[in-house]
Amino acid sequence: MEFPSRAIENAVNELASLPGIGRKTALRLALHLLKQSEADTERLGTSLIELRKNIRYCRHCGNISDEEVCKICSNPRRDASLVCVVEDTKDVIALESTHQFQGRYHVLGGLINPLQGIGPSMLNIAPLVERVRVDEVKEVIFAFSANIEGDTTAFYLSKQLAPTGVHISSIARGIPVGTDLEFTDEITLARSLINRTRLATPDAD
Amino acid sequence: MEFPSRAIENAVNELASLPGIGRKTALRLALHLLKQSEADTERLGTSLIELRKNIRYCRHCGNISDEEVCKICSNPRRDASLVCVVEDTKDVIALESTHQFQGRYHVLGGLINPLQGIGPSMLNIAPLVERVRVDEVKEVIFAFSANIEGDTTAFYLSKQLAPTGVHISSIARGIPVGTDLEFTDEITLARSLINRTRLATPDAD
Repeated sequence: MEFPSRAIENAVNELASLPGIGRKTALRLALHLLKQSEADTERLGTSLIELRKNIRYCRHCGNISDEEVCKICSNPRRDASLVCVVEDTKDVIALESTHQFQGRYHVLGGLINPLQGIGPSMLNIAPLVERVRVDEVKEVIFAFSANIEGDTTAFYLSKQLAPTGVHISSIARGIPVGTDLEFTDEITLARSLINRTRLATPDAD
Repeated sequence: MEFPSRAIENAVNELASLPGIGRKTALRLALHLLKQSEADTERLGTSLIELRKNIRYCRHCGNISDEEVCKICSNPRRDASLVCVVEDTKDVIALESTHQFQGRYHVLGGLINPLQGIGPSMLNIAPLVERVRVDEVKEVIFAFSANIEGDTTAFYLSKQLAPTGVHISSIARGIPVGTDLEFTDEITLARSLINRTRLATPDAD
């Protein structure tokens, strides 16, 4: 691809370095910006620079935050004895949007992934163990994606947390709501059978 | 979607204003930037701001350019008597990558699209007619996308250029190279039949 100007070549190269954006998409985005007002583009560019400069992480849970302690950790109505461990901020946002969780979070900043060279020491794990030991945490819930990295991380964390005697659980794996049983893969179906939930218990005589 | 910090909310809102980028993708991009070095993000943001600030358009053809006259228009080896009319810079880049065209370009900056409120007066059309009249242009080639807007623009331009007596042509519509005939839609197939190219002519007796 040969570009008619260096300014557009630079912008395309930078945009194409983002994940999921190829050179054709990058060019389309750059040409879109040229049709917008200069103020719009300035706002976009500045917001990205400011994001990287001003970002802070909560001292307790490791989540992205404006203050030293994030909104969730500083909320006295959130149950401090229940901690949900997640990979990153995306997952906190997803879980918060369910309005079903009243506890607090712990953001690892990634999952254990030996193939990509991500080991336990690179993640926010030691502060979690410390937090469970010092604070009065009763239950830790693992909310990881259902893949090898998620399972590996859950296995490692279980071992690390075992000496603290805390209750450990994981979000359920099963058939997504709205999905037909016949189209569900065998592994998910097998897991949903093993982890079946009881609907009724007959009276004991 | 509730965000843990204003900086990330701003960045997501700005990224999601780009075409083809929804809020989930925008969040993924923002979190990706947080994992990169501050210099990387600064370079991306600056390149976008600089793009919009420093962009210039060629005085002759309307294409994006670093100088007052673009590289193609200022190249004496390009045939000035042959002008290819395109919608925008994307198309110039696509045509240049074929290495088959030795003429010059004229960039309209859009196609006539009444539904989106884009009329002929908003496009770079008058300078094209002027250019054909004043310069010694022998042929004008329309290279537009094969849709209503492309056809409408070609029709309008043909009428505008008729008084100048210039030759007018359009790039061929037909079966894309590498495509099976049976999977081609009827309209394309019909066009490819009407616009067939002659392979051999028997000797006249």
